[in-house]
Amino acid sequence: MTLLPIVERCDNFSLDTTKEQLVPFHLSKDSTVPVGFLYPSIVQHLLDYNSAPDHWRPNAENNATADEPPFGVSSSRVYFSPSITTFQDRSALCKHLCEKWRDTGLFSDVIGGRLWRNELYPIYPLAMRDNTTEGAAFVMERVCCALFGFVTYGVHMTMYTEDGRIWVPRRAKTKQTWPGLLDNSVAGGIPYGLKPMESLIKECMEEASLPEEIAKNAKTVGCASYFYQTRTGWLQPEVEYVYDLCVPAPDVGSQYIPKPLDGEVESFELMTVEEVIQHMRSEEFKPNCAVVLLDFLIRHGHITPENEPNYIEILTRIHARFGFERYPNGVNTSSAE
Amino acid sequence: MTLLPIVERCDNFSLDTTKEQLVPFHLSKDSTVPVGFLYPSIVQHLLDYNSAPDHWRPNAENNATADEPPFGVSSSRVYFSPSITTFQDRSALCKHLCEKWRDTGLFSDVIGGRLWRNELYPIYPLAMRDNTTEGAAFVMERVCCALFGFVTYGVHMTMYTEDGRIWVPRRAKTKQTWPGLLDNSVAGGIPYGLKPMESLIKECMEEASLPEEIAKNAKTVGCASYFYQTRTGWLQPEVEYVYDLCVPAPDVGSQYIPKPLDGEVESFELMTVEEVIQHMRSEEFKPNCAVVLLDFLIRHGHITPENEPNYIEILTRIHARFGFERYPNGVNTSSAE
Repeated sequence: MTLLPIVERCDNFSLDTTKEQLVPFHLSKDSTVPVGFLYPSIVQHLLDYNSAPDHWRPNAENNATADEPPFGVSSSRVYFSPSITTFQDRSALCKHLCEKWRDTGLFSDVIGGRLWRNELYPIYPLAMRDNTTEGAAFVMERVCCALFGFVTYGVHMTMYTEDGRIWVPRRAKTKQTWPGLLDNSVAGGIPYGLKPMESLIKECMEEASLPEEIAKNAKTVGCASYFYQTRTGWLQPEVEYVYDLCVPAPDVGSQYIPKPLDGEVESFELMTVEEVIQHMRSEEFKPNCAVVLLDFLIRHGHITPENEPNYIEILTRIHARFGFERYPNGVNTSSAE
Repeated sequence: MTLLPIVERCDNFSLDTTKEQLVPFHLSKDSTVPVGFLYPSIVQHLLDYNSAPDHWRPNAENNATADEPPFGVSSSRVYFSPSITTFQDRSALCKHLCEKWRDTGLFSDVIGGRLWRNELYPIYPLAMRDNTTEGAAFVMERVCCALFGFVTYGVHMTMYTEDGRIWVPRRAKTKQTWPGLLDNSVAGGIPYGLKPMESLIKECMEEASLPEEIAKNAKTVGCASYFYQTRTGWLQPEVEYVYDLCVPAPDVGSQYIPKPLDGEVESFELMTVEEVIQHMRSEEFKPNCAVVLLDFLIRHGHITPENEPNYIEILTRIHARFGFERYPNGVNTSSAE
């Protein structure tokens, strides 16, 4: 029985086949590759923001165009106005905009209340640029990125014992997203300013009480990428750097037993590969964690072309390119200006 | 210094950006996904074949349409005629066509003389269907597939020692393709009728004198896919099932030392990772072997996001989807019938 449905729950959106209208978000009026895609409702909110008296303005004194609205908007693209060209200005504008939306209660199911993270994510000029913290065009509050369809980056580690079992945490029931579901051994978003391995080491301590001496033995083994549309329809294309950490079984070395620390995880359980697959099938894992575990099971020889009829489909879809460059003028939008 | 150029030598073609005119090859007049892409010169040769007095005809006695030409040709698609609908008929037609081209000296730089392999490859209704030998729409002589842009399938194994060195063969100087270049430890195409692991076991003996008892310990660890355009311009999208085999160092177990058997390989050398990378950079590897080795080096933690600025670009491009479904009516062709 194929495991493809597990991929389809996570890589569940394609610019090529969507019926949605999506307006590309560009860094400038003439750029050729979008950095995100917007629903028409968001475009309307950007127009409202443009015409609000308190919209953000670059504060350069001699900037002759400082009074132009912050966003350029046509029917085929949205972009930063010509006066907004620096990392600092783009970031300040996005901060002002997103906080205004939050404070007026817009999109409260996405960015409201406890959902707001106070964590800045980098947005790169080319989607899927490596997250090395260099070269970002601007930063935006983490939870707002899905409103714009910006690509975000994370780290996911599978911690397994020498006898082949996998440490699986259950997310706290109080967690804002996916409460109570199963997760990867250690996982988290990469905030602006940290390199992937630095993020992983931080998350290893916060989520699993694993000190740096152990965490730094994690092996970097690839990345997973997939185009995820959230249950409420927002676009969340993601890249996850993937790590393996092989540790002794718990009866051998107790310092290798992960334990909850920051409250995001409720408990850890050591599962066999068969148990992991069974929980994947019954949709008990957070969708993207199941995808990272599929990658692990393929790399470790548990899933093969002989036992999985959609082996190639799975492997290519969990290493997806998002195709932003194919839609510089948007998807299913009117081409008239 | 990025290793991306190694990928670019192999994944060197895209339907999205090519300037070439390409006519899609469909299984039937109304199918929605092509199985291959043809240059206009090939379309002309199919028209010539259609009008030749000795073209192949289905031999069903009561087939009222048996006298129609074997290929349907419009400006936006080529397809098997409505009377040719079975695996057997499609395969027999392709055999007749390809042998006629060979015997009349057409495309002799691709299919002539010693290049002809007498090896049948499966063509699947959906490109990138897994090569399980079931579900093929027809078979075609191996070397002819590139004339049609059909996806072909192979196996590639990296045999490495416990101390981290890699067994690298040099191709025989007499080999028809890529003579004298470096290769993967064991590699070969998957002929119709064999499953991937069966192919690998066969190749392990033929190319490296490794018996089945050793070969079957190879671990299936994924697949690589890339759209390759040959040096003479033909399209050769490929999927390679990827295997790892860890063996003792040669001073420990001499039965694990690969040796040439069938003359395709001249010699084997045990190289360090650094030596392998150096030979990759100096273009001494057959391009697709370098790609499989990149995948190996990523999975084993030698190439990381911290030391490779194009990590994501490399990983997604060596797990490429070919986008056939986006071009049911061809690429850069006139849309008029």
